[in-house]
Amino acid sequence: MLSKSQISFVLSLHQKKYRKEHGLFLVEGLKSIQEFAHSSFQIHTIFYNIEHQNLLPKLPSNINLFEVNNAELAKISTLKTPQGILAIVYSPKDNIIIPASFRNQFTIVLDGVQDPGNLGTIIRTADWFGFKQIICSEDTVEAFNPKTVQATMGSLARVAIYYENLISVINELSIPVYGALLDGNSIYKTNWGKEGLIILGNEGKGISANVISKINQPITIPRFGETESLNVAITAAIFCSELARNRN
Amino acid sequence: MLSKSQISFVLSLHQKKYRKEHGLFLVEGLKSIQEFAHSSFQIHTIFYNIEHQNLLPKLPSNINLFEVNNAELAKISTLKTPQGILAIVYSPKDNIIIPASFRNQFTIVLDGVQDPGNLGTIIRTADWFGFKQIICSEDTVEAFNPKTVQATMGSLARVAIYYENLISVINELSIPVYGALLDGNSIYKTNWGKEGLIILGNEGKGISANVISKINQPITIPRFGETESLNVAITAAIFCSELARNRN
Repeated sequence: MLSKSQISFVLSLHQKKYRKEHGLFLVEGLKSIQEFAHSSFQIHTIFYNIEHQNLLPKLPSNINLFEVNNAELAKISTLKTPQGILAIVYSPKDNIIIPASFRNQFTIVLDGVQDPGNLGTIIRTADWFGFKQIICSEDTVEAFNPKTVQATMGSLARVAIYYENLISVINELSIPVYGALLDGNSIYKTNWGKEGLIILGNEGKGISANVISKINQPITIPRFGETESLNVAITAAIFCSELARNRN
Repeated sequence: MLSKSQISFVLSLHQKKYRKEHGLFLVEGLKSIQEFAHSSFQIHTIFYNIEHQNLLPKLPSNINLFEVNNAELAKISTLKTPQGILAIVYSPKDNIIIPASFRNQFTIVLDGVQDPGNLGTIIRTADWFGFKQIICSEDTVEAFNPKTVQATMGSLARVAIYYENLISVINELSIPVYGALLDGNSIYKTNWGKEGLIILGNEGKGISANVISKINQPITIPRFGETESLNVAITAAIFCSELARNRN
């Protein structure tokens, strides 16, 4: 039986403010929790229903375990349809850019992406294609937003997310800067070098003007139909796929 | 001032049952409504706030127009953040498969996609790449679900959606059947012919067994990382992009 204070503590973690304050975030669903359990992340507490009793991954002994009923889970879950198991996980320390780890590879850079589902899908897609790092502008949605965590399907346990001032990072890394723009060169005719940043913009406003000024390779996904734009997670996927194709 | 019966009528169209019964669905946001106004779809009613008074597209005279305040819009909207304008639109008659219109081109076929946002994103992406038709299994989420309509960003006005028994359609069309599977040939090494169906499966269960048995070209997006799967809208986008690349 969960106490009132346990419930209100988990509920507080539905909000960014308290996630930051406590350095904790929520992960739901057995598969995702398993991914975090087998990563460098540390788990604080797991709440599980009886069906998950024998499914718990092998866990270090310092994790608090609480068996709860479905009504209790519904109270603390961020989901309309709770998945029977919810974990509180420690946020990692802020990742610090080490320029050498961005050499000889391509890195997705998000400028102001706002939709948590889009960010989560981009992290999952990056993981599929073997990208281990994503750089986000400081105003990009938080990676530990429950909707983002959910959409990553566990990939957040493997892909490091950096929140940075993009102009400073671009200057510091000093590698080619590709950007997804509507008036660039065809992505299908791009000669990719060996390294670079791939800048993708906000859902409505695109890439901000000061970041556009840093792009030396504007790239476009050719349009054959009439819609004005592609979703940013779709754009990210097509860039990841083209880069993967180029690696082959 | 909206009457109670107007409000309850619009609210009924939040539900699939009443959308079917009345042959109507909802579209929100000026840009999307403009796309429908300039398409073969017929608009029934538009509710708009005063800021949209001078922004209404040129409309046929048989459309009901109601200026409403933001509180009224919030009552009838399907969105957390209403966009100041909401239209009731007539659903088209069920699209009937004409086999000749699937020759000499590729068509995305969805087997049981459940998430309305995924379907909407697939429709928008298909439109970008110039695909004019999508075939859905009968258990795929409804294209007129408000979340789907929203995610298409107006592309639903241009892409025809067919709901069909997939086995019957595959037999009837008799063109090559490609399918997104985890153990197929690399999409980057596929020799695309001139026509075909591209089957994509349900978010959790993939393609159903009887449809898999009809696939003669299993195709895989090579994985470089560790996540188990790609989101279905992402998979659709990478197929669309590869086919577009092949057209060039």
